[in-house]
Amino acid sequence: MNKIIIFLLFFGVSSEYATSQSLLAEKYNLMPWPQELKEKIAEFTIDSDVTISIPKEDEGAERIRNAAVNFLRRLSNRTGVFLKEGFPVTGKRGSINVTYNRVAQLTINTDESYELIVEDSIINIKAITDVGALRGLETLLQLVQHNGSYFYFPGVEITDAPRFVWRGLMIDASRHFQPIHVLKRNLDAMASMKMNVFHWHLTDDQGFRVESKTYPKLHELGSDGLYYTQEQIKEVVSYANTLGIRVIPEFDVPGHASAILTAYPELGSKEGYAYTIERNSGVFNPTLNPSKDITYQFLENLFTEMASLFPDTYFHIGGDENEGRHWDENEDIQKFKKLNNLETNHDIQTYFNIKLEKILNKLGKKLMGWDEIMTPNMPTMAVIHSWRGENEGLPKGGSLISAAKKGYQTVLSNGYYIDRMQSVEAHYLVDPIGDIQLTEAELSRVLGGEATMWSELVTPLTIDSRIWPRTAAIAERFWSNQAVNDVDNMKKRLKDVSFKLEELGLTHIKNRDVILRGMTNNQDISSLLVLTKICEPLKIYTRNKDGIEYQTFSPFNLFADACVVDAEDGLSFNDAVKQFVNSSNQIHYNQVLAYLKVWSKNYDDFKKLNKNPKIIPLEKVSENLSEVSLILSNAFEKEEVTVENLSKIKNGITILSEPFVDVEMVIVDAFSDLTSHIEANYLIK
Amino acid sequence: MNKIIIFLLFFGVSSEYATSQSLLAEKYNLMPWPQELKEKIAEFTIDSDVTISIPKEDEGAERIRNAAVNFLRRLSNRTGVFLKEGFPVTGKRGSINVTYNRVAQLTINTDESYELIVEDSIINIKAITDVGALRGLETLLQLVQHNGSYFYFPGVEITDAPRFVWRGLMIDASRHFQPIHVLKRNLDAMASMKMNVFHWHLTDDQGFRVESKTYPKLHELGSDGLYYTQEQIKEVVSYANTLGIRVIPEFDVPGHASAILTAYPELGSKEGYAYTIERNSGVFNPTLNPSKDITYQFLENLFTEMASLFPDTYFHIGGDENEGRHWDENEDIQKFKKLNNLETNHDIQTYFNIKLEKILNKLGKKLMGWDEIMTPNMPTMAVIHSWRGENEGLPKGGSLISAAKKGYQTVLSNGYYIDRMQSVEAHYLVDPIGDIQLTEAELSRVLGGEATMWSELVTPLTIDSRIWPRTAAIAERFWSNQAVNDVDNMKKRLKDVSFKLEELGLTHIKNRDVILRGMTNNQDISSLLVLTKICEPLKIYTRNKDGIEYQTFSPFNLFADACVVDAEDGLSFNDAVKQFVNSSNQIHYNQVLAYLKVWSKNYDDFKKLNKNPKIIPLEKVSENLSEVSLILSNAFEKEEVTVENLSKIKNGITILSEPFVDVEMVIVDAFSDLTSHIEANYLIK
Repeated sequence: MNKIIIFLLFFGVSSEYATSQSLLAEKYNLMPWPQELKEKIAEFTIDSDVTISIPKEDEGAERIRNAAVNFLRRLSNRTGVFLKEGFPVTGKRGSINVTYNRVAQLTINTDESYELIVEDSIINIKAITDVGALRGLETLLQLVQHNGSYFYFPGVEITDAPRFVWRGLMIDASRHFQPIHVLKRNLDAMASMKMNVFHWHLTDDQGFRVESKTYPKLHELGSDGLYYTQEQIKEVVSYANTLGIRVIPEFDVPGHASAILTAYPELGSKEGYAYTIERNSGVFNPTLNPSKDITYQFLENLFTEMASLFPDTYFHIGGDENEGRHWDENEDIQKFKKLNNLETNHDIQTYFNIKLEKILNKLGKKLMGWDEIMTPNMPTMAVIHSWRGENEGLPKGGSLISAAKKGYQTVLSNGYYIDRMQSVEAHYLVDPIGDIQLTEAELSRVLGGEATMWSELVTPLTIDSRIWPRTAAIAERFWSNQAVNDVDNMKKRLKDVSFKLEELGLTHIKNRDVILRGMTNNQDISSLLVLTKICEPLKIYTRNKDGIEYQTFSPFNLFADACVVDAEDGLSFNDAVKQFVNSSNQIHYNQVLAYLKVWSKNYDDFKKLNKNPKIIPLEKVSENLSEVSLILSNAFEKEEVTVENLSKIKNGITILSEPFVDVEMVIVDAFSDLTSHIEANYLIK
Repeated sequence: MNKIIIFLLFFGVSSEYATSQSLLAEKYNLMPWPQELKEKIAEFTIDSDVTISIPKEDEGAERIRNAAVNFLRRLSNRTGVFLKEGFPVTGKRGSINVTYNRVAQLTINTDESYELIVEDSIINIKAITDVGALRGLETLLQLVQHNGSYFYFPGVEITDAPRFVWRGLMIDASRHFQPIHVLKRNLDAMASMKMNVFHWHLTDDQGFRVESKTYPKLHELGSDGLYYTQEQIKEVVSYANTLGIRVIPEFDVPGHASAILTAYPELGSKEGYAYTIERNSGVFNPTLNPSKDITYQFLENLFTEMASLFPDTYFHIGGDENEGRHWDENEDIQKFKKLNNLETNHDIQTYFNIKLEKILNKLGKKLMGWDEIMTPNMPTMAVIHSWRGENEGLPKGGSLISAAKKGYQTVLSNGYYIDRMQSVEAHYLVDPIGDIQLTEAELSRVLGGEATMWSELVTPLTIDSRIWPRTAAIAERFWSNQAVNDVDNMKKRLKDVSFKLEELGLTHIKNRDVILRGMTNNQDISSLLVLTKICEPLKIYTRNKDGIEYQTFSPFNLFADACVVDAEDGLSFNDAVKQFVNSSNQIHYNQVLAYLKVWSKNYDDFKKLNKNPKIIPLEKVSENLSEVSLILSNAFEKEEVTVENLSKIKNGITILSEPFVDVEMVIVDAFSDLTSHIEANYLIK
């Protein structure tokens, strides 16, 4: 830690730093951007003689060996080079040499710094720990370049270490179960972005997802058969550990408890209530009963069992969104409240949390919970997971800064809710600290952050495209210097990073075509593909208003599922229009016109499809898009437009402005701007 | 069994049967084609009210419940219909009703027959066993149709049962390890094609892939860390069982033993030999020592351990391709040979196999082995897996018919080696029996067949595209009436089946683009895509001559890996050319010309790519393809050609005839035919 702090103090948030590194960031597609990169006049050719040397094998060397083998496979696949030596060598020098001082036990104090030097015929990666070496190998792989004839690593000297110690991704496996191969490929992607915490949201109203030997009804009755066996949990934890990723389980209590109470209704707050696994989305009333001893006995036994599966010290108990309605309705709980001098439901929950804190403490665990647990009496041993910020009406810095100031360790997720389907830019520009002044002690309590993938609307088919590539930009926010914040440059690098994530088996690119093939019943998908590139899924939970349009078993291979945030043609067209309207520059004019021509013929292509009920709802949009685009492109080319056509454009834009099949078309404002430009500059007949 | 036999006798291989069913096969894309389908004037609308009723849950009802839940998910995804009831109902009628007499224990005698009747508002699936009901659900899902406005099941009455009891797919997890999610998606695909045997090739020279608690060095030293834990084995066996698929493990001995001997060299036939995991492909010398007691002790202990993981009675011991070179070189083995009056190495292996048969017998297992085990003294309790046929110089019927006549149960794989990269047609037309006359007893010993996916040249990225869709046609050969053998009709249905396999998560379609994106470093892949549609990977093991060009850790994301057998544009162009040359019909002329025009501009598109070392080898081919196509299309349009251009065509064809980057271009003969047609019919200037 000291090393990192000194390093950050040295580089700080200086503008010189930002300038020197951002020039380099135009050249190399590294992400997260390292703390310091210097170029060297050198070039390391990647040929069949490349070897990688790692320290001699001993107890605990699986991490570096696994990373080195995978490095060789990925290098070979990326370059097509047939390596002579397919495995790392030990006890002798290789052309790539990895060294470190010790094998790390993963904790929040694990040193992840490394130094990477690429010279003409030798590469050295030096680190304090094997985990640091892993981070260095990922950086090296991002450096692969080619000159047309062969691939090489450019000469560089990189000194790197993370800004925050907690760089996480939460995956909700309850709303939609995510099989372990889905988790594993996402862990691979996380490691490639130097993330180090996998927060596993394992229970919620929609399912309890872990096999329990102590309380087997939990998985038998609470999961629809979709749960992780204890062996699978161990497999994922071990897989993550090998990648230098800690696993934090979350067992969400006392609310979000429908699945638990389906199995053990006697723990519920409402006598005789017919608890069932929830199929809708939202905040529900089933809540554990805080007034019964059996509740705490149950939690102590369950946590004891679960603690043995999750070696990490941090243990997440959720604690969010409990409105306590069933508490209000239960006379015994009301008596209990009085008896214990608890004034509000918050006080009851604090009572409950303090009991849990003691249970976990005995198990050697640190209690972590969503920011609702930060009630006045909550001990500062707890770790506050901040999900509420200014956008929920809190003061600047939200619950994160407030927690840090009150003495709690804290982790930020407000601003990183990737299920809100907001632009990468929105997340990237959220800085955990920003310009808030904190003491060194306060600062050290801000551990970092987590992107959160709530899974109400994602399945294994689509989850990757909701997590990636945006989470890579968030990972950079957690790792890189605060001054690394040029959005355009980030987007340029992200494009390359996103494509390379596919090498790890991620499906965020390829499954779009799968969905469109399904929608067309295996016809030519090109006309739909054009539409997906200018449409984005509805944002901020408007896709599933009131949580009942979609149920857990609804289809999620619809047009909205084929669309992604930051629709590529949409963004690029909007940008071109903005520039053109400002400058009337020929390059941007050509770009705008090229898009308009593509869209003009969309409806002709769409019409060729044999219609089925899944694509019929897109017809009107395709038709209007083509009509508006055709009129606009004609207007530009002729520098004139008829009044009738102007009115058609405006009608068309009105139609295109309406959300349809749970997406919004993102080029509509640009269409309006173009129309204004035409009205202002061209002949109207 | 009786029911099936009566059924087959009744329908037999009659031409009336073939005619009536093949007309229907033009209309419905069912595969494998059922024994009997009759149309009914009815239509069952698929709307949100669809429910599925299954028998009340009791012990062993997981199979039907799992199948019914998955049926609902797949139906919902295919149609986009939001079902109100996301789970099967029990104890009351649904709109789809599944009934059966009993839950099956999976054996070769499991009854898989079913009856499926679709009426206006009710569907009934009746079966003897739950497994039969599963087969019926798969058929029903293949019946989904739409009329533009809504989806429906057409009225039908289907009576169905398999021709053979053993309809298998072998996957080699040794040459390239295949993680369990890869196996699971292939099991799903198998079940959708009504296949019922997964033969798991678990050990070979390149890796021992099962955790052994008795002999832990096997997986520790013999697998490069890539092995299945015992829990994972159980998970796959249970997953398969739920789909009505038996799992047959194969532990290949006494040859193919490099990995075993890397762990336990003391069991080897050559003292002091440095056994290591093999990285190349081929037949190697490391062989267990048949003269040592410890060998049999080892095998007895190992098989005892493994037998507990695999509940099926059949247990495959490999036994293939042992040339016994190390036996010849070992004096002790020579002494042992004399002492036991064993004349040849085959006799030694028979001695070895008989010992194994006794071990397995004690464990309640039936020994199965590749056809080399069928030596004169081998008891007929053994099951002969036939991999050699006429193409290896055996008499008609190959080792399969010979085994059946000698009294062995037998399974056919000769003709179904899908790793040979031959056309689907070649496999489809291989009938296990053909026109050979067998007695009823002999016939009953021909259990069925297995497609074999040897994995020297496939990885998890490409394995699906090597197995599917061709294995679906093989599955039809094993299930359907022998008279169902119209290749064109099969290909029509296969096209639809192949696309629908993608719903199950198979990657055979989508991973082509992944490979091409990788090759181009994320540029526009359309010019390469055009090439993949007319190129096929080199066939019959010519891609990896002598087994040393590719090693297990070589890259397998090259151009050849993006290409598949039965290249779609290639086949369709060849067909159009054939028809056009025969008839000069305008439709075929237009088809031919359309392809020529696409290919004419291939090089223009290719040239736009920023070249990297992975795509440079394709340049010459793209250039020649475009040149030849352009000259040909001009010649057709002008009905004349210059002598110079004719010579250019011929030179171009010569170049295109050469294999390049491990593929062959399949349109070259058609180019030659077109050239001859031009020479014969048009003006040559």
